[in-house]
Parts: sequence; structure tokens; C-alpha cells
Amino acid sequence: MDYRGIFEDAVDSLRQEKRYRVFADLERIAGRFPRAVYRDASDNAREITIWCSNDYLGMGQNETVIAAMQETAGKLGVGAGGTRNISGTNRPLVELERSLADLHRKEAALVFTSGFVSNEAAISTIARLLPDCVIFSDQLNHASMIQGVRQSGMQKHIFRHNDVAHLRELLAATDRKRPKLIVFESVYSMDGDIAPVAQICDLAEEFGALTYIDEVHAVGMYGPRGGGIAERDGLMERIDIIEGTLAKGFGAMGGYIAANKAIIDAVRSYAPEFIFTTALPPALCAAARTSIEHLKVSGVEREMQQRQARLTKAILADAGLPVMETPTHIVPLIVGDARLCKAASDMLMDKHNIYIQPINYPTVPRGTERLRITPTPLHTDEMIFELRHALVSVWASLEIPRVQADPAITASKLTSGDLTLPTVGG
Amino acid sequence: MDYRGIFEDAVDSLRQEKRYRVFADLERIAGRFPRAVYRDASDNAREITIWCSNDYLGMGQNETVIAAMQETAGKLGVGAGGTRNISGTNRPLVELERSLADLHRKEAALVFTSGFVSNEAAISTIARLLPDCVIFSDQLNHASMIQGVRQSGMQKHIFRHNDVAHLRELLAATDRKRPKLIVFESVYSMDGDIAPVAQICDLAEEFGALTYIDEVHAVGMYGPRGGGIAERDGLMERIDIIEGTLAKGFGAMGGYIAANKAIIDAVRSYAPEFIFTTALPPALCAAARTSIEHLKVSGVEREMQQRQARLTKAILADAGLPVMETPTHIVPLIVGDARLCKAASDMLMDKHNIYIQPINYPTVPRGTERLRITPTPLHTDEMIFELRHALVSVWASLEIPRVQADPAITASKLTSGDLTLPTVGG
Repeated sequence: MDYRGIFEDAVDSLRQEKRYRVFADLERIAGRFPRAVYRDASDNAREITIWCSNDYLGMGQNETVIAAMQETAGKLGVGAGGTRNISGTNRPLVELERSLADLHRKEAALVFTSGFVSNEAAISTIARLLPDCVIFSDQLNHASMIQGVRQSGMQKHIFRHNDVAHLRELLAATDRKRPKLIVFESVYSMDGDIAPVAQICDLAEEFGALTYIDEVHAVGMYGPRGGGIAERDGLMERIDIIEGTLAKGFGAMGGYIAANKAIIDAVRSYAPEFIFTTALPPALCAAARTSIEHLKVSGVEREMQQRQARLTKAILADAGLPVMETPTHIVPLIVGDARLCKAASDMLMDKHNIYIQPINYPTVPRGTERLRITPTPLHTDEMIFELRHALVSVWASLEIPRVQADPAITASKLTSGDLTLPTVGG
Repeated sequence: MDYRGIFEDAVDSLRQEKRYRVFADLERIAGRFPRAVYRDASDNAREITIWCSNDYLGMGQNETVIAAMQETAGKLGVGAGGTRNISGTNRPLVELERSLADLHRKEAALVFTSGFVSNEAAISTIARLLPDCVIFSDQLNHASMIQGVRQSGMQKHIFRHNDVAHLRELLAATDRKRPKLIVFESVYSMDGDIAPVAQICDLAEEFGALTYIDEVHAVGMYGPRGGGIAERDGLMERIDIIEGTLAKGFGAMGGYIAANKAIIDAVRSYAPEFIFTTALPPALCAAARTSIEHLKVSGVEREMQQRQARLTKAILADAGLPVMETPTHIVPLIVGDARLCKAASDMLMDKHNIYIQPINYPTVPRGTERLRITPTPLHTDEMIFELRHALVSVWASLEIPRVQADPAITASKLTSGDLTLPTVGG
């Protein structure tokens, strides 16, 4: 049997659809983020600017965060040495979980090796433990949440994206006596929109459902202590399970849930993805905790991120580039065609030393292919102007349609404060 | 609805079966492994000896491995900053994958955040891409492999543990035209036994099946360069997919597969667990690669581990303790009762400052509950004698039955070389 041929054909079909992914080989430079060294296919290195990082606040390059990793590695070594149950639970990990429980004002927290695993393990385990549970899942939920829902084997209803009327209909049509779990995100990472969290909590209360929110694109970045959208809106105590990541706003790696002790103890005790996985290395835990604690008391990174995001949107919209208006730090630029999107990304890298990955199907629906820009506090105003220049040039070369400047997001909407840098510690 | 009560009841049922897990809060001490600081429930700290670590060779405490982590963190920062496709692919990760491909003499390798995820993602994706595939899975395969098999949704046959006659029967009864995938481990971690790898490869050839081997308890530890059992037995090229971990023999964190380019490219392109997960931090990749490259050229860790394992088995067997004979570095001590097993573990920690986690159902079948001891090159002869003393005392206090010393594994079987330390570099 020609196994090799079968696998090659599977990949060729992606190539034909212009969905074949080539990973950019990057070497970030501590202290100089968003600058990085890029190596092309011939292994030639040159400096570029990253405009699509999920290290949203640049915390992975923060000096105290790096020092925490280095010091802990020096004291405790590299790996954890075992699963949580078999010699792998380490002091920095115990402290990290306390820091996360405190961040979300919950009784306890549980750390996993990634956000994907947190969602898969927590959703499937929680649903399986609730006899005859029904899951209500937002239509645009992340792949990891879908995998958790599917793996639970429980009945599910998909509600239209952020549509509380539809969610209400589905809840009302379900037997009141059955346990219910509503799973949704706070910030949806591809469109940068925000869920109607308060209204979903109202419905959960009315129909007696548990609420599970994915805040991976919000923790560290929203709320007075970086607790996410639920913290910003004063809703943390109305959410039963808050899921987050250590890999984006906090600049490290790993995922987690925070909830009451009973839920944490149950997931800890029953989820195979958790039980049979080596614990997170102590040095990584120490780095993550340093970052979380820093962002609990420092707001300047959040303010600068919001400022640079507003500025980027305004400047690109003024230039007639198709910026989607979003209430968040995420700046999608719609191209609407997989081939053009890939060509734009390649040209940005080759001609302008700017790295923005094309986002294609299945991450976004066909016809909405895009460049997804994520300004950080470390992108300077000068970099934003360079970005505009590069994008305008690429749009012209590839003849991608430009649009009338959207008055909702052009520079006229910026307040005077937007062009004044907040002071450090502010 | 009393959700909290449902979760509490689920956990209470574990307590009643004496299967409730309490994680030991440990702080390893770089350079002094297997010694560590243990904190009890009242947060009192004291020094103990770990006898159940999966940092099998102590590489997580190796000075050059620690230095690689520290240096890379200083240069590149903490997190990778994105998924592999969205700005997360970093130079040390590219180099790590090359090092792994070379270790197993394969065209390519792919790194995941854990061994669990590697198995789940790789097995399910490979099987799904083969139209109408049938999976043949060893009865004692790890939970992560079972999850991968289940998640593929493909037909499966379970063959009796290490039983090639049964495997042949099942293969022979399957339509020759259907794609077939045999999944098995090399070293089974709870009984410490080894699969008949060559015979399984013979069957795969005869019936045209792909072979997938899990070498997580063997990489770094067997074979002249640490390539695992398949390397030791000269069989690497007969295995299609070799799965391993960076978290045990190599002392870091993460999992991987090594295979031909077509398979790696397909898994890379289709597995959601891979696509939607932040890449491994560069500092962790650099540490893992340093460890792998060290073990490719240094055999002394492997020799010392085998010596200390043989010595431990012989000395405990001489004392009439129920040591299972194994052909590997794993030393299971059968207790056969969940309550007694937990009590023995507690007494070892409380009275003797020795940490060995009880292994209960579902990790092992009921009635075979055990203490699973993993001697490393860093456990001294003195520590082994202390262990014997402590175990004999615990066995007496708890009235656990002792056995006639098994002549197959007592000290009389040790050769004179076993009590001479190999020289460094040997």
C-alpha cells in the first residue's frame, strides 16, 4: 500500500487551495521585541518587525519575567520530572495556581500545558460528570472548545454567534431538570469582537446553567488587574469556570482554569489529559507568575496596547485600507481571497521586512481571509507609519481593492490623549 | 441545581475507594537531585529523597542543560509568542526538530507540548487521513494512545498485551486492501516490560501495516545514542512513526514524533491540537536539544542508571520485598491493595523522608497496586540501602506480606562489575 502517497496527496490538496502553511523561522531578540531575526528558505538571516504576535503585551521579553525563569532554572533545574501526581508538582506551580485563583477571585485554579488542552480537558470532563448534561456552545468557539464539547459525548446545541435571543430559545426548549453548560469566549480572536457576557450570565441564572468562559485573548489585557473582560465588567463571580492562557498576554506558556474548589478537584481527579501529562517546568511557572503579578499592579502595558491599537486602526483606515472596526486590540484587515492574502503576506516579508501571517480557512470562513494585526505596547508610532506605507504599497502592487475610509475608525475619532504616551506606572 | 454537590460527590467516590490523589508539593534542588524540599499540608518544609521521578537520568539537573535554558531565555525571552503558524516558530525549535530527526534517523520530526498531545494528535490524524483505516492497539497502551485511537473514529482491534500470535490473527482476519496502523509502546511504564518490536515489524511487513511506537520510557535511555529500544535492536528504519517525550529521559518538557516527511507534513497540516497551540518556548527547546545531543555521545548516564536499577532490584529482593523482575530501569514493588499502598507511601514520607507515590487504579489494574521505584544515575548506593531499610520497616509496621527472595533477581545474580562504578565518559 502506498501510504506515503496518501499523505502527500492530503497535503497537496492544501497546496492547491493555497492553504498550505509555511512556518516562518524566527528568532526574537530579548529587549528589542517586536524586532526579530527571520531566516528564509535558503537560511539567509535578516531583521524584520513582527506584527502578528500573540505575546500581546510583550511580557515574554520583560526583564523581570526573564530573570524569574533564569533564577528558577538555576535553583530547581529544567523539567518538573513527572506528572502532577508522580513527583511533578513543584513549588512554583503551586504558587502560580494561587496567583491565578486570586486573579480571578476564585477558590482554586488548575494549570495545563496549553490553552488547547485546558479547554479540551475541562469542558469534556465537566460535561461528562454532569448526568445527561446539555452543552450550549457559541457558533464561533475555538477549535479546542469544539474538541472538548465533542469529546464529552454529551448532547450539544450551537447558538448563533453572540446571539442571546437564540441562546434563550435553545435553553427554553430544554428540559429544566437537565444540567446545562454554556461555553463561550469573551474576546473572539479573529474578528476581535466581545461576547455579551452579562446577558449570557442573566440567561444562565434564569435557566440554571453553568457558565464557562474562554478569556485567552483578554487575560492580562482587560480589567483593572488584568483579570479579563469578566473582571472589567464586574462579572467574574457570575462565571463558574474562567479559562485562560499563560502564553499570550502573560508571555509564557500553558493554560488554566479557575473555579470553585469542587470543580477544580473534579477536573484534577478525572481528566486524563491532566492526569497523564508532565507538570509545567518550575522556571516557566515562576516566569508566568511574575508576569501575572506584575500586570495585577501595572496598567501601563494595557493602556499603551489600547493606544497603539487605536492608532493603528485610525492610520490604516485613513489610508483606505479595509480595517474591521473592533472594540479590542485586534486589528483585522480583510483581503477576502486565500491566494491574494498569501501573496500580500509574502510581499510584506520579502519587500518590507514586515511579518504578518495570512489567516485562511479553516481558521476563518472562506471569503474572509485576512491579515490579522496585533499592535503591542512595544510597537512605536514610527513602526505604525512604516506599516501603513508597506500595506499601501502591497495593496497597490497586488491590486487589492481599497475602500472609502470608514468614518467610525479614522484619525478624526482619536482624542488628543491618544497621541500622548501614558507615563510609566500610569 | 446543586452543581457543586455533583462535583463533590464525584470526588468523594474516589476518596471512598482510596483513589483520591494528594499532590506532593516538591522543590527540587539543582545539583542535589534526587534530594528535594517537601512541604506538608501545614506548609512545613523538610528534605526528602525522590524515588519515583521520571527525570530518569537526572538530565533536568544537568548543568549544561540548565545553562542552555538560561542563556536562551536571556537572548530570546520566555514564551514563543504564538502558534507555530502565527509567529511562534522559533530557531531553537527548528534546531530541536532537526536534532530529533537525526536521533531517530528519520527525515523529519514534529514537536508538541506534551507526550499526551503527541499521541492524541498524531494517532488520530494519521488514522483519519487513511481512508477506511483499521487500528491495531496493544491492550496496555497508554491513556493518550487510547484517546488518539478513539478520537480518530476509526475501527480498532485491541490485541492482548505483547501477544504477536493474537495480533497476527487480527491482521489476518482484516481485508488486505484496507490501510492498517499498529500502535504499541516499547517500554510499558508500569510493569517495565518490553514489546516484541522485531516480531511486530515482521507482521507489519507481512500484512502491509504502518507501525507507530511510543518510546517515551526509552528515549535517552536505550540504544547507543539514546534513540530507544528500536535503536538498541537496530529496528528504527522498520518503524514508520516513533513517538517520544522530552520530559523524561531528556529532563525537559514536550513530546514529539519522528517519521518521513510526508507523514510529518500531514500531521503538521491537519492536527488541530498542533495547529492551535502556542509553540514550545525557545529556552525549553534549547535545553531539550542540549540534553539530546549530550546523550547521543555520552553513555555513562545510561550505564549508571542500569547499574543502580539492577542493584536496587537485587537488594530489595534479598530483603524479601516483592520486586517484579523487569528487563528495564523500572522497579515495581507490588502491594496489591489500594489502602495499604497509600499507607505505605505515606509512612515512607512521614517516617523515612522517602517519596514514592502509590500507583493505583486506573493507572494499573485493581489488585496490582504498587510502589513504582525509578532509580537514576544520581541515586547513590547508600541511598539504595536506606531505601531497603525504610521499606522493610514499613512492610513490618503495616504487616504487608513479604515473599521468598526471588532467585532470579537477588544479589547473587549481580556480576562483580555491577558494584564497580563505570568511569565518566564510558
